[in-house]
Amino acid sequence: MKLTPHEDYLNLVKIWPSIQEYQTLATKHGIDDVFQDNGGKLLQVLLLLGLKIVPGREGNDASDSTGQEYELKSVNIELTHGFSTHHHMNPTIIAKYRKVPWIFAAYRDITLQTVYLLHPSELEPYFTKWELKWHADGKKDINNPKIPITYIIEHGQMVHGTPPDLSVKRKKRVTKKAAARGPQNVGGFEAD
Amino acid sequence: MKLTPHEDYLNLVKIWPSIQEYQTLATKHGIDDVFQDNGGKLLQVLLLLGLKIVPGREGNDASDSTGQEYELKSVNIELTHGFSTHHHMNPTIIAKYRKVPWIFAAYRDITLQTVYLLHPSELEPYFTKWELKWHADGKKDINNPKIPITYIIEHGQMVHGTPPDLSVKRKKRVTKKAAARGPQNVGGFEAD
Repeated sequence: MKLTPHEDYLNLVKIWPSIQEYQTLATKHGIDDVFQDNGGKLLQVLLLLGLKIVPGREGNDASDSTGQEYELKSVNIELTHGFSTHHHMNPTIIAKYRKVPWIFAAYRDITLQTVYLLHPSELEPYFTKWELKWHADGKKDINNPKIPITYIIEHGQMVHGTPPDLSVKRKKRVTKKAAARGPQNVGGFEAD
Repeated sequence: MKLTPHEDYLNLVKIWPSIQEYQTLATKHGIDDVFQDNGGKLLQVLLLLGLKIVPGREGNDASDSTGQEYELKSVNIELTHGFSTHHHMNPTIIAKYRKVPWIFAAYRDITLQTVYLLHPSELEPYFTKWELKWHADGKKDINNPKIPITYIIEHGQMVHGTPPDLSVKRKKRVTKKAAARGPQNVGGFEAD
């Protein structure tokens, strides 16, 4: 048994004050923990666009200074090229989705790269498709249908960054197996 | 509709190079994304104790430079005073638990505060209790029985930090409702 610091521990200690500063900024904007639930990524898009979190809401997650609400979605283009939507998609959710503009944030690993804005009318083909499928499947909720980033690039208005290069070979997560077991088990670390 | 940067965006931009440096350090040690699954917290305890992640393993999550494996658990004492264990506790898991030393990491929000080391014999009262309960309940897995931090403080060897002050009033998460919906829905951000 040998529990002694790695030489990189000194680097961590050196960087740490900046991490605390980042968390202080995050806390000010309603993000309790940058290291969970993509908190540190969410902060980037909130501050860039002057948005606030709408807490505890199903859908329509953010609002701007005029009170306009937005549906906010994100993707790490190093891992996947489709935006996740909702794990129980049904007509109630779709009705909400039709009411607000959508913001799609594309990250390259942890760094925000591009942001697109789409009006609900531009997403109507997906809403219609999901609605039809839900009825065709005997009113069964759809598990997280994706919206491909290629569709967003083609139909959306880019409000930040540069169009992502999708030709990059996608990485596999090192901890894929661990991730599959659920976030609470990665490295024995539990979601609070 | 108004999408313009918050004045704090400049602060974020200023801090960002340090965040990237932290992620680079994390990547070197097998953590793909500091902003998910408590990655940025895990890095602290790994580097402090010279541990490596054992990827894709059920239980026994970390190993030291001699190859000794450890069960690694963490808690944010600002939110809760019990260490989570396993969501399907049963004799197979308990048998693994009896084989290795345990490391308990206590955080105050994002910052590592204290680390305790316990030998499996010191946790035997819990192992026995869980095993008896599992049999008594007709071989039903126990959902995440906790180990109180008070027990760890009393029976463990402190290998880092100072004993945590547990008299501090526990905070409630701002995003509690959102958290209850699952990490993938907080702010519309999806676990990859």
